[in-house]
Amino acid sequence: MRIVVLAGGIGGARFLRGLKSAVPDADITVIGNTGDDIHLFGLKVCPDLDTVMYTLGGGINEDQGWGRVDESFTVKEELAAYGVGPTWFGLGDRDFATHIVRTQMLGAGYPLSAVTEALCDRWQPGVRLLPMTDDRVETHVAITDAGTGERRVIHFQEYWVRLRASVDAEAVVPVGAEQAKPAPGVLEAIAAADVILLPPSNPVVSVGTILAVPGIREAVAAAQAPVVGLSPIVGGAPVRGMADKVLAAVGVESTASAVALHYGTGLLDGWLVDTADADAVAAVEAAGITCRAVPLMMTDLAATADMARAALDLAEASR
Amino acid sequence: MRIVVLAGGIGGARFLRGLKSAVPDADITVIGNTGDDIHLFGLKVCPDLDTVMYTLGGGINEDQGWGRVDESFTVKEELAAYGVGPTWFGLGDRDFATHIVRTQMLGAGYPLSAVTEALCDRWQPGVRLLPMTDDRVETHVAITDAGTGERRVIHFQEYWVRLRASVDAEAVVPVGAEQAKPAPGVLEAIAAADVILLPPSNPVVSVGTILAVPGIREAVAAAQAPVVGLSPIVGGAPVRGMADKVLAAVGVESTASAVALHYGTGLLDGWLVDTADADAVAAVEAAGITCRAVPLMMTDLAATADMARAALDLAEASR
Repeated sequence: MRIVVLAGGIGGARFLRGLKSAVPDADITVIGNTGDDIHLFGLKVCPDLDTVMYTLGGGINEDQGWGRVDESFTVKEELAAYGVGPTWFGLGDRDFATHIVRTQMLGAGYPLSAVTEALCDRWQPGVRLLPMTDDRVETHVAITDAGTGERRVIHFQEYWVRLRASVDAEAVVPVGAEQAKPAPGVLEAIAAADVILLPPSNPVVSVGTILAVPGIREAVAAAQAPVVGLSPIVGGAPVRGMADKVLAAVGVESTASAVALHYGTGLLDGWLVDTADADAVAAVEAAGITCRAVPLMMTDLAATADMARAALDLAEASR
Repeated sequence: MRIVVLAGGIGGARFLRGLKSAVPDADITVIGNTGDDIHLFGLKVCPDLDTVMYTLGGGINEDQGWGRVDESFTVKEELAAYGVGPTWFGLGDRDFATHIVRTQMLGAGYPLSAVTEALCDRWQPGVRLLPMTDDRVETHVAITDAGTGERRVIHFQEYWVRLRASVDAEAVVPVGAEQAKPAPGVLEAIAAADVILLPPSNPVVSVGTILAVPGIREAVAAAQAPVVGLSPIVGGAPVRGMADKVLAAVGVESTASAVALHYGTGLLDGWLVDTADADAVAAVEAAGITCRAVPLMMTDLAATADMARAALDLAEASR
């Protein structure tokens, strides 16, 4: 079975671990979000790709969900001693090595997709991990500065990590997406898929950014394979993260049904909501999307594998 | 008193510490060798500048004479886990931060001299540290490969660190030196100096490379100030390092007098040899260079300060 998953960071990575556990023999291609990539200290950092790679490769810090386990922060402390920031982005020493290798390869002319493949040679994530694009896309967020009252446009990571989404996102723009091309293999994998899954990743800044690369949304909509998503909203709030803030920016309520309708019938064949949102099933089905309510909390590997099985079952049912 | 010192790495740095101790109020400009600079992992590494900066700034690993004290090697281990080398160059985590800051600033368009000044803002070495040039110069060494018998040209660091000078250096070439220009401030400092000192650094790949930048040798030779050198050869062998190997490449014997004559009367006004080489004094003086024999082993700070005082005394005597 060929499965394509459009993944962001932590939510996508944990779902993928459950999926691999549910169907160990499946041929899984992950199309990873690169809109939250950022240049820090002259190095190219790809947080979502790395979170998938580290999680599936056994190197993730399980407690925080991102970054490396057994991490130290000597380089960061030294950079701070030079007065070089930002200090709000937590790059550890082990993580730095990944960014050094990536930056060196990019500087030598390799595209990000080739670099990602080379990094995965070490991590053996058990999936084919493709960046959504080899081109530079950076999600920016428009805010009103709480201090000065001025409107400012900042990098998504500054909004998410430094400000912790503490002010409203007035607009979310994947800068560069319009000119970006899907990375080699992305459209081919979508066309050849038996199932396409949207894990409970952020619908705006993760899955939404991937779909913003011209050609990808169209390919998913046109695919032979059923497309099934899992709601990242449970009981009216994001399971983790601050997805409500960026959903508001695109005028979408933070409910399981509103996110389904945001993806739309042109894209989705099936949608899973949590049992807490069972009353949303009727509204989603009324819109023409097959919907089921199942437990959607990724509390452990077994629960996550059950979610993956439910998604595959729903795909089968909506074929 | 304005003192200009042409310095390589360990020997130059330790001598400078003694000089600062001997004349704490002197205005010292250090013209540092950049011929052993190397790009590693996409980062610009300047071993000699850093050794001077760390030594005078209190961050040096005293035992090995280079690199940072309390160093860890997490980044290097991770790079090795990615299969990315070289593994023979010992970059520690603290040291990596220096190279990351430098590379980021160079990438942003700052010349190496401005970058070095910025790095020294942290270290406060108590001297003005100038790279010999802002242009790229890399010392290469021609060897005959012990295995294949083929002639190869390798980077100086590969010769020095990986091969530990275990094969003969057939030629030593500061690639790029002919096109290089002295960094801003270098010629001005030489012209304004009251004394110019050549510490017991490597006469070929350290001081020799600095002098190979067009304009620097001429400026030193033309300077009003007396020029005094300290022999890096004691009792027919280098005090440390493998200077004999690269002296042989330029046809110079590893003796205290031969090195003085290699620098030449056009450059040197005075020359200090070790008391073990007292019999060399006559030969050096016969060539027209004032010469004295004093203890030249930098065993501790007091001994090194005595060497610096002896050099300044000799400068005064040869004025």
